[in-house]
Amino acid sequence: MRLADLETPRLVLDAGRMEANVARLKAHLASLGVRLRPHVKTCKSIDVARALMETPAGPITVSTLKEAEQFLEHGVTDILYAVGIAPGKLDHVMALRARGADLAVVVDSVEAAQAVAAKGAGIPTLIEIDCDGHRAGVKPGHPVLLDIAKALARGARPAGVMTHAGDSYNCRTTQAIADMAERERGAVVKSAAVLRSGGFACPVVSVGSTPTATFARSLEGVTEVRAGVFVFHDLVMAGLGVCRVEDIAVSVLCTVIGHQREKGWVITDGGWMATSRDRGTARQAVDQGYGLVCDEAGRAIGDLVVTDANQEHGIVARRDGQPLDVARYPVGTRLRILPNHACATAAQHDAYHVVRGGTEVVARWPRFGGW
Amino acid sequence: MRLADLETPRLVLDAGRMEANVARLKAHLASLGVRLRPHVKTCKSIDVARALMETPAGPITVSTLKEAEQFLEHGVTDILYAVGIAPGKLDHVMALRARGADLAVVVDSVEAAQAVAAKGAGIPTLIEIDCDGHRAGVKPGHPVLLDIAKALARGARPAGVMTHAGDSYNCRTTQAIADMAERERGAVVKSAAVLRSGGFACPVVSVGSTPTATFARSLEGVTEVRAGVFVFHDLVMAGLGVCRVEDIAVSVLCTVIGHQREKGWVITDGGWMATSRDRGTARQAVDQGYGLVCDEAGRAIGDLVVTDANQEHGIVARRDGQPLDVARYPVGTRLRILPNHACATAAQHDAYHVVRGGTEVVARWPRFGGW
Repeated sequence: MRLADLETPRLVLDAGRMEANVARLKAHLASLGVRLRPHVKTCKSIDVARALMETPAGPITVSTLKEAEQFLEHGVTDILYAVGIAPGKLDHVMALRARGADLAVVVDSVEAAQAVAAKGAGIPTLIEIDCDGHRAGVKPGHPVLLDIAKALARGARPAGVMTHAGDSYNCRTTQAIADMAERERGAVVKSAAVLRSGGFACPVVSVGSTPTATFARSLEGVTEVRAGVFVFHDLVMAGLGVCRVEDIAVSVLCTVIGHQREKGWVITDGGWMATSRDRGTARQAVDQGYGLVCDEAGRAIGDLVVTDANQEHGIVARRDGQPLDVARYPVGTRLRILPNHACATAAQHDAYHVVRGGTEVVARWPRFGGW
Repeated sequence: MRLADLETPRLVLDAGRMEANVARLKAHLASLGVRLRPHVKTCKSIDVARALMETPAGPITVSTLKEAEQFLEHGVTDILYAVGIAPGKLDHVMALRARGADLAVVVDSVEAAQAVAAKGAGIPTLIEIDCDGHRAGVKPGHPVLLDIAKALARGARPAGVMTHAGDSYNCRTTQAIADMAERERGAVVKSAAVLRSGGFACPVVSVGSTPTATFARSLEGVTEVRAGVFVFHDLVMAGLGVCRVEDIAVSVLCTVIGHQREKGWVITDGGWMATSRDRGTARQAVDQGYGLVCDEAGRAIGDLVVTDANQEHGIVARRDGQPLDVARYPVGTRLRILPNHACATAAQHDAYHVVRGGTEVVARWPRFGGW
């Protein structure tokens, strides 16, 4: 089967690019002496995860218990659920642990720690640290860390600390990302020291985001790195300087369905349902609209972008607003759209259609969604 | 089962609100003497569609052939696929017609019309009219209409004209929407007249968008109205004055997982994977962030909105930036988030958890996605 045989829109994965992305980050982390706990929220696919994991049992990071459940069914047991635990999910966590998952959870308050401890099930639990003010977590080194650890020790198992430098997505230079990586490292190392000073071993010291993982210069004191989007990369990562456009491994295959000649618009069946509503490059130096346009073989076409999208319509035009000779893209032409945000775009699809550089589809890898 | 028993995030549908929304638009269209061909791209659920359709066989409008396929399996046969047809989909269209679907397609060029006609299968085909410059379609009354109809007549069946006033989403007043409805009507009536002058009967004259359907004062010369989002409504519709916030029938149930007390943030497990990345209210007078926050029973809480979202984290704060006493929302509290855009938010979920005003779950209605 070839891409030309697929009804559109469909999600395409270039396995060669993916493997190169994985090899690059793994080599960097190996040089820093730290293991990778890949975040599978990006791929939600066992076939992709197999290219990422150190062993068939993991380790992995998940963002939902559905991911934990699905990967456990494929024999992955070393799992960190990296979103602050809602008390109502603890029975589900315990059921997964009873089925063999070495599943750890995350808290950032005494209140949540008490809920985990109240189960009396020794659930391994990390304390989330807020390294950059962007989301959840305890201030680095804050004394409440010891209160949380003590609350956990009454029935759960305090297992360490974790943080996520989500604000690295807003950095303007790769130097700023490197600085952010150092700040991320410092936040957890300092917090681990506080816990150790209180008698808690703190075996896990976990950091992670694709930008900081890529530009970290030292990970001393860190035991693992979580990163997810690096497996596919995307236009936001390219805009940050974390990858090149040519490294982006996923794209949305679509078909030209019409034109507005006077406006220089090519209209496709690749709308926001296929690309997602993510406009992550809108705040970057180069706004890529709803995605950068490539030919069917995956080569970027000058400065053509999806300038607007409806549910099942994409409008392709030149980024600079200059006239486009739409006759070069007759009805039926196949195009591929590189995504702003791989996690969001992939989530709109139920499978990857795998190619290796060309247009021959060598596999179809299912992916799941939901909770 | 009650909402409190559901693991979060989950999509909630208030069936009473939905039924009232449907009754309201149907009564308005009945008063204008026009039938409704509901757009099921919003619901993608046979259970919801049954509350919308005139008969068990339809009519309906779809945005994908997957929708046509799924609804056909439930006995719905009168179907308009309202996205310009890609030539590569025509064999699929013919297969669905062979299975009993009275499935019509849409074109807006001689090029596409020739592709449909080349199948020699008498596929009923509407010509899309561009009433507002926002997307696809032929200029109203343009002579090319006759060229397209003639091309269709060589093997397809020219069945009429259709348009969608998508630009009504950008209107600032309900008077502007009413004017847009008249412009939408005028565009297809004028185009139908051109076709009839050329000897084409033009039995179908189809318009539709929820805003214009709601505020149209006359639909003379129009044979059917397509509208979709009215079944659930959403914050974009409320911002346009098309519905009240209290009419919004879908919401995302989520759970508080933590706080940033100093910032006045409540953090939930309702991230953008659950709400979608749609920020449709960002360009309206009242920006609702990633959604307006309600209590578990569905009552809006002052001016609390989801001010930011990560994949599986929502940040709830006051819209005005004033301090929030986060202690009122302890870890484990259930909240419901009203969506910016019902089509986009519902698409992130695989089922509706149906309530009738309260917090008792009376049904679970599956929904599908994909293509």
